Amino acid sequence: MATAGKVIKCKAAVAWEAGKPLSIEEVEVAPPQAMEVRLKILYTALCHTDVYFWEAKGQTPVFPRIFGHEAGGIVESVGEGVTELSPGDHVLPVFTGECGDCRHCLSEESNLCDLLRINTDRGAMIGDGQTRFTARGGQPVYHFLGTSTFSEYTVVHVGCVAKIHPAAPLDKVCVLSCGISTGFGATVNVAKPPKGCTVAIFGLGAVGLATMPYKAELSLFWFPQLFFSDRAGLPCQGIGLGMAQLSGRASTGQTSVVPARPNVCAVGQAMEGARISGASRIIGVDLNPAKFEQAKKFGCTDFVNPKDYDKPVQKVIIEMTNGGVDRSVECTGNAAAMISAFECVHDGWGVAVLVGVAGKDAAFKTHPINFLNERTLRGTFFGNYKPRTDLPGVVEMYMNKELELDKFITHSVPFSEINTAFDLMLSGESLRCIIRMED
Amino acid sequence: MATAGKVIKCKAAVAWEAGKPLSIEEVEVAPPQAMEVRLKILYTALCHTDVYFWEAKGQTPVFPRIFGHEAGGIVESVGEGVTELSPGDHVLPVFTGECGDCRHCLSEESNLCDLLRINTDRGAMIGDGQTRFTARGGQPVYHFLGTSTFSEYTVVHVGCVAKIHPAAPLDKVCVLSCGISTGFGATVNVAKPPKGCTVAIFGLGAVGLATMPYKAELSLFWFPQLFFSDRAGLPCQGIGLGMAQLSGRASTGQTSVVPARPNVCAVGQAMEGARISGASRIIGVDLNPAKFEQAKKFGCTDFVNPKDYDKPVQKVIIEMTNGGVDRSVECTGNAAAMISAFECVHDGWGVAVLVGVAGKDAAFKTHPINFLNERTLRGTFFGNYKPRTDLPGVVEMYMNKELELDKFITHSVPFSEINTAFDLMLSGESLRCIIRMED
Repeated sequence: MATAGKVIKCKAAVAWEAGKPLSIEEVEVAPPQAMEVRLKILYTALCHTDVYFWEAKGQTPVFPRIFGHEAGGIVESVGEGVTELSPGDHVLPVFTGECGDCRHCLSEESNLCDLLRINTDRGAMIGDGQTRFTARGGQPVYHFLGTSTFSEYTVVHVGCVAKIHPAAPLDKVCVLSCGISTGFGATVNVAKPPKGCTVAIFGLGAVGLATMPYKAELSLFWFPQLFFSDRAGLPCQGIGLGMAQLSGRASTGQTSVVPARPNVCAVGQAMEGARISGASRIIGVDLNPAKFEQAKKFGCTDFVNPKDYDKPVQKVIIEMTNGGVDRSVECTGNAAAMISAFECVHDGWGVAVLVGVAGKDAAFKTHPINFLNERTLRGTFFGNYKPRTDLPGVVEMYMNKELELDKFITHSVPFSEINTAFDLMLSGESLRCIIRMED
Repeated sequence: MATAGKVIKCKAAVAWEAGKPLSIEEVEVAPPQAMEVRLKILYTALCHTDVYFWEAKGQTPVFPRIFGHEAGGIVESVGEGVTELSPGDHVLPVFTGECGDCRHCLSEESNLCDLLRINTDRGAMIGDGQTRFTARGGQPVYHFLGTSTFSEYTVVHVGCVAKIHPAAPLDKVCVLSCGISTGFGATVNVAKPPKGCTVAIFGLGAVGLATMPYKAELSLFWFPQLFFSDRAGLPCQGIGLGMAQLSGRASTGQTSVVPARPNVCAVGQAMEGARISGASRIIGVDLNPAKFEQAKKFGCTDFVNPKDYDKPVQKVIIEMTNGGVDRSVECTGNAAAMISAFECVHDGWGVAVLVGVAGKDAAFKTHPINFLNERTLRGTFFGNYKPRTDLPGVVEMYMNKELELDKFITHSVPFSEINTAFDLMLSGESLRCIIRMED
């Protein structure tokens, strides 16, 4: 490769200040160092987590920074020690990694890699603590989530790069590198609904996102009579979980976490996972009845609006299912919704899965008898997918038409119009907006 | 059979009043009706649940009553419709049943039979609402847990009778019909510790029962600095769970439950289950250091006394295991111990199992991030064993020397001395005292 080992000058969308439009300008991208790869990004999508840290309200401001973490591209060159990837490989960069050597990577069950677990505050490469981006005038520009895909070229740790089938359409499968996999995995990997079972999905965010105004606080206070929220107007998705993990993973519950917010990308795919698993009945729970029509496209068969009842929603669901649903998936991040999602599963075999991230003062609280009656409660991060090991298979599910993605992609813009993608998300018009880097 | 279809006159230990010594006297035992069997009891053991309802403190007093639910015997005759059992079969009567037809029995996962789920208040047969016992003077005597094994003959619903291998020694395997199976099943069926893993067992009740005075309140207030208890001096075991289920099973957490108490029989077998599963490290948690020596016999490798530390016990365990144990089993019934047992499991794959029954005002409370970091919490009833389907296999495990029972059986008395068994338990001297009906 002519560019291997050399600095590449290319265009990137630099965020110089919190909340200010990104500036597309020339940056220098240093060659990948040991265990790093440099990627040419072809397609990237805007995710709520980008917006969340770009706004930097309540988060550590790290600027100037190149955002972006949901993307597809091609390996340009590899650093020392990289043997699994070669220039030309088609890949998905991922916000969380898989070193392959730690206890978590060696476990068949965990994807919480010790080395490459998501870190939203880190702005540099973990190898040498330096950035690979330099703006004009020699100013270093910080990374985001180890991916920084709002750049024509970026440098990523090899453990955060999933090699996928070269025939997979990158403009579609790029959305699998984040929240879509979270919701789908939460259902198929963690809830594991048996064929013919009943499933409740709490929060129809992704399904109804096109009609869910990002800034409309009323719409985002899920179940206002029953539940609380730490902060309005902050829908987010799978990656949000990682934010909570930054400051305390071994956990006695005293971790520093981000405000509650619905896991919007995950929800639709949670339902998609239930549909694909052959659930006979998929009950969507949301405050907005308009979402039911849209949820039907994802297989939703019943709709429960907590506002329509004087009793707790878990009781409503228990009555309508003769004892409770077999599985539930909670995507709102609201602690009260988590409790409802747990208590609405059937005794004897019910499994509830938590996806949404709760606020820092949130508490999950229930009477122990609800566990003793043989219910199970589990949480998940990134749908329990190991990024490098498992994402290639999810991509192939899409290629084999076993998984739908197209319905999530509502918009597409050239890189030069990346700020339009922000506008579309902020106005609630888009579900996923693809940014075409080469246009 | 000469006695089939006829009333049998035999000896039974009748409890005429709460807390008063049982009276061994002649009773009449009516023939089994439809779907019932009449058993000749050969061996029965005293369990804390018998004592608990005999004391009837805080429980509905149902007297006169014949207690007893942990036993082994032989089928004397069968009622109409019983095809699976015949006179002469060796059996274990069980306090919870398996009708074979309900949603729970048809589920591979649940053992919470809709028809025969434990009911501690019921004093009669479910078929006709009548008792089968009559004392002198024609007074009906009530049943207990559908078993009433403190009688030479008793009548039990066919769904509550497990047919076992005829060569199994009934004086030993009789203890499998209750708490021993609960603790063992909690570990091997629910926690499922992989070979080589680390396990924490909260509460060393059964192990140290011989030294744990039943009435000694200090000893029974597990972790007094950290935890609370609704009532002292009430150790109980697996069956206790069912008590909680009486009045509210569909559950929005508003069920009526009994006070917190350690699941004493279950604990030792929880450890036995961990040992048999090949756990590399078994951490016992208890306030009484004397219990460690005894716990070693059950495979306990480490001991943690929460009194020795200024920090929460979950933090101690996380530090000593470099991140947490792989599995934990909570047998005390104390809500704070449940929280510790959950929070001490490793992120990514840890599974905590609740066995002990909490008090009616208890709450399980934790930060949702502890779930989201890929921990699982489950509860179990009777070790998730289906009584009729699974107990024969547990009996054979004992016969094949894969499971030890003898170390739990510390005493043996003839039926005429049944009140001595109560004394031995109340003084804390016995772990299990076998009552020999034919002596």
